[in-house]
Amino acid sequence: MINRGVYVGRFQPFHLGHLGAIKAVLKDVDELVIVIGSAQYSHNINNPFTAGERLVMIRCALQEAKLSPSKLWIVPVPDVHLHMLWVSAVEGYTPKFNVCYSNEPLTQRLFMEAGYQVRGIPFFDRKQYMSTLIREKMLQGDDTWKALVPKSVADFINEIDGVNRLRDLARTDRV
Amino acid sequence: MINRGVYVGRFQPFHLGHLGAIKAVLKDVDELVIVIGSAQYSHNINNPFTAGERLVMIRCALQEAKLSPSKLWIVPVPDVHLHMLWVSAVEGYTPKFNVCYSNEPLTQRLFMEAGYQVRGIPFFDRKQYMSTLIREKMLQGDDTWKALVPKSVADFINEIDGVNRLRDLARTDRV
Amino acid sequence: MINRGVYVGRFQPFHLGHLGAIKAVLKDVDELVIVIGSAQYSHNINNPFTAGERLVMIRCALQEAKLSPSKLWIVPVPDVHLHMLWVSAVEGYTPKFNVCYSNEPLTQRLFMEAGYQVRGIPFFDRKQYMSTLIREKMLQGDDTWKALVPKSVADFINEIDGVNRLRDLARTDRV
Amino acid sequence: MINRGVYVGRFQPFHLGHLGAIKAVLKDVDELVIVIGSAQYSHNINNPFTAGERLVMIRCALQEAKLSPSKLWIVPVPDVHLHMLWVSAVEGYTPKFNVCYSNEPLTQRLFMEAGYQVRGIPFFDRKQYMSTLIREKMLQGDDTWKALVPKSVADFINEIDGVNRLRDLARTDRV
Amino acid sequence: MINRGVYVGRFQPFHLGHLGAIKAVLKDVDELVIVIGSAQYSHNINNPFTAGERLVMIRCALQEAKLSPSKLWIVPVPDVHLHMLWVSAVEGYTPKFNVCYSNEPLTQRLFMEAGYQVRGIPFFDRKQYMSTLIREKMLQGDDTWKALVPKSVADFINEIDGVNRLRDLARTDRV
Amino acid sequence: MINRGVYVGRFQPFHLGHLGAIKAVLKDVDELVIVIGSAQYSHNINNPFTAGERLVMIRCALQEAKLSPSKLWIVPVPDVHLHMLWVSAVEGYTPKFNVCYSNEPLTQRLFMEAGYQVRGIPFFDRKQYMSTLIREKMLQGDDTWKALVPKSVADFINEIDGVNRLRDLARTDRV
Repeated sequence: MINRGVYVGRFQPFHLGHLGAIKAVLKDVDELVIVIGSAQYSHNINNPFTAGERLVMIRCALQEAKLSPSKLWIVPVPDVHLHMLWVSAVEGYTPKFNVCYSNEPLTQRLFMEAGYQVRGIPFFDRKQYMSTLIREKMLQGDDTWKALVPKSVADFINEIDGVNRLRDLARTDRV
Repeated sequence: MINRGVYVGRFQPFHLGHLGAIKAVLKDVDELVIVIGSAQYSHNINNPFTAGERLVMIRCALQEAKLSPSKLWIVPVPDVHLHMLWVSAVEGYTPKFNVCYSNEPLTQRLFMEAGYQVRGIPFFDRKQYMSTLIREKMLQGDDTWKALVPKSVADFINEIDGVNRLRDLARTDRV
Repeated sequence: MINRGVYVGRFQPFHLGHLGAIKAVLKDVDELVIVIGSAQYSHNINNPFTAGERLVMIRCALQEAKLSPSKLWIVPVPDVHLHMLWVSAVEGYTPKFNVCYSNEPLTQRLFMEAGYQVRGIPFFDRKQYMSTLIREKMLQGDDTWKALVPKSVADFINEIDGVNRLRDLARTDRV
Repeated sequence: MINRGVYVGRFQPFHLGHLGAIKAVLKDVDELVIVIGSAQYSHNINNPFTAGERLVMIRCALQEAKLSPSKLWIVPVPDVHLHMLWVSAVEGYTPKFNVCYSNEPLTQRLFMEAGYQVRGIPFFDRKQYMSTLIREKMLQGDDTWKALVPKSVADFINEIDGVNRLRDLARTDRV
Repeated sequence: MINRGVYVGRFQPFHLGHLGAIKAVLKDVDELVIVIGSAQYSHNINNPFTAGERLVMIRCALQEAKLSPSKLWIVPVPDVHLHMLWVSAVEGYTPKFNVCYSNEPLTQRLFMEAGYQVRGIPFFDRKQYMSTLIREKMLQGDDTWKALVPKSVADFINEIDGVNRLRDLARTDRV
Repeated sequence: MINRGVYVGRFQPFHLGHLGAIKAVLKDVDELVIVIGSAQYSHNINNPFTAGERLVMIRCALQEAKLSPSKLWIVPVPDVHLHMLWVSAVEGYTPKFNVCYSNEPLTQRLFMEAGYQVRGIPFFDRKQYMSTLIREKMLQGDDTWKALVPKSVADFINEIDGVNRLRDLARTDRV
């Protein structure tokens, strides 16, 4: 049987830490399903980009890194907000997988309680490569965020005027 | 073609700043659609009043200000929580409009990305006339909030025991 | 206290039977709240028009009939799909009312079980003036539907290309 | 007619304060409906346990306290998130009741506005017996939480590895 | 470990076939979880009764049949409408179970695909004891439906004017 | 600018008519976004397969047909059930596109009303290659359905026991 892993992220935005994780996991499995979580959200301070925009980022980044698309699946999955249903939702949107890769405690626990094997991600410098950190740099006008994402992702964010969007989102007082 | 604007607010409660904005915008357009946003919410600390109660407030205030109802539409629109769908939802609940009036950065951006013309509101003293400020005064037992809303709105809030409701909401520990 | 009634319909489209009902009820009450039910639906065979379009139809028809807007409220209310919650939803979206006007058995029962007084509508020729019948005529290319709605409503439906929309909806095979 | 009360809690987890409240209320009424609120939530920091797990806790605790099941109903009710609909939702999920027992300001107000009699709970040491406090002790590795819940509840939480689950939930950075 | 089964029904209304099924299954298991499915629905032609009313019916029937409550759990579970999530939802609302009892093909398949053991119900005359048949008799004014439900259930339906409610629901033209 | 089309289907299951349509459209555009509609549904008579299973079918079929993955995007999009929001939802889940390919009247109208260019699909024998027809053949035990889908799709449906699943779904009496 095929050895297929799943890797869940929000990718707001997709950065070099995510890319490193994917490369590391690909040494372990035949195929990897990259799940774009919280797919229905966009235009808020923690989720500035749409699922479609994140899809573009990931595909550009994988192409830039010359990773073969035949071993990878990229699937947006909307949140169901009921943690007790979440693993089932992921199962419904994806090809069958047998192992979950994550360093995130809640993701680990939910897959573990659902009976899956869960493995930590071998490489992943969480301190430096964090979407939260990148969004903060964007807000502060600190252009060093560009060094933390693949070049094609930086270009795409520029093309869709992403930094200005994020700044508008940060200034809102809508609850 | 008719020149019709849209103006979105939560109106928790409707105050003199909102009224000033409506008067100013009416000089610009033939008709104005006032959207009561987050219509489905009530009885929480940021949204104490129901859509129906806010509808009464606005209608009382417009009548008190002798604004002709024939140029105005008042439409409650429930939130869809997916920002990427929100402009479409507003379009579905309202008569066709061609320009959006707002000083709110997120509202401005969403209408702009949807292809609408967006204009700032010429008059609107956000510092003093803020629903947040008014709700805080209500909570602190500071009756000067009454000077910030039309008299008919203050009377209506009194009639529905609105200040006590807000205080109960503030004391809850329900998450 | 003010004697305020509520009258619920889907108004797909608004026709002369609805107008007759409103005129008849207005003899009974000080004010009437017209609820546009199933507000979130449009573009399906039973609900071709958006809430915004129905709002326009009703306002045009009331103006054409020279009914004073000061005694009327028009409020779109989205369905909640749980009948046990529906009367509460109507209450939340509308000004306080004390009597429900309806000839529709389910509406009558839900308001009755919620403790409201329910009255039949004195005039309302359901056989002839039915939205279902009107939509069927539209589909069959039978222009006599125009005689069943106020002139301003027929004009508006024409303006938005409503009959062709309905025909497209009828030909869909999407479930 | 039967005198039936309702008592709403989230029971995350069920503790001795809840049990004391139930015992006190049972002196007042013929039957009591215990509503497990926010039933659809679990696996988050404020709601670690599923409705099913909370059901087990309550039933174990009542049995341990030798309270007769014939006077008690235990009913999970999912949140509807629209406060204006919440009392109707509780009514739809439960047998008919005539009085609400609560010391919680929002619950009190919602039932009061819906026309119910609302009574405070005679015994309920909120300071000491609080689910929030218990969850904090669990997180800090302070085993004195076990003294604040019935023994059978402590045993059950142990059986399902509840303290470790809560710690994983606390370490998540998923929004 | 405890041998606990689950038995899912809509119980619109609860009848002697359901009771027979429960008695038969109780010979097989230590405990049985009776799930009231589609819990959020009521007041429609296929689901006339609220979850609360069905809860009362079942409890009355079990008491009338002198079945010990200590071996039984009765839990309303709202539908999630996504079949791929449904078994997880049932798991979240109930105590842990290890076997599913059902003669219903979809229920059987969903539990089977989720990895549960599924057993047919030994006794259950589906032809005669069907909720659909009972509701039809109610609509036709045929009182023989009373012989198909426990006496206490017939009494309760009478008490809440259930047959007239169903007739009103059948006459509605609301979609 | 890139010329990118969108093509929406439910693909229950993916068949040779879908494949023919994709091949024909690819002559017209630089890239094509294949949207798996109604993504959240599965295990019902009109939607037997999960989004994940349909994703596998499409990818197998494209590989079998030696279509280059670099020009194609495959994106599951859940229904929002409000037609007025549907085009926005598709926009949010996908890379930016400028033309919609469809022979389906409702899809055509919704994209047209949203301002998109809409083109019919040049090749698409709807009579023979219809998912409905294929599901009927499956139910009747008529194996000729296999000739209507790519070989790899037939193999996959066999692997997941799809025909038996569909038969169970057809025998359900759950509403």
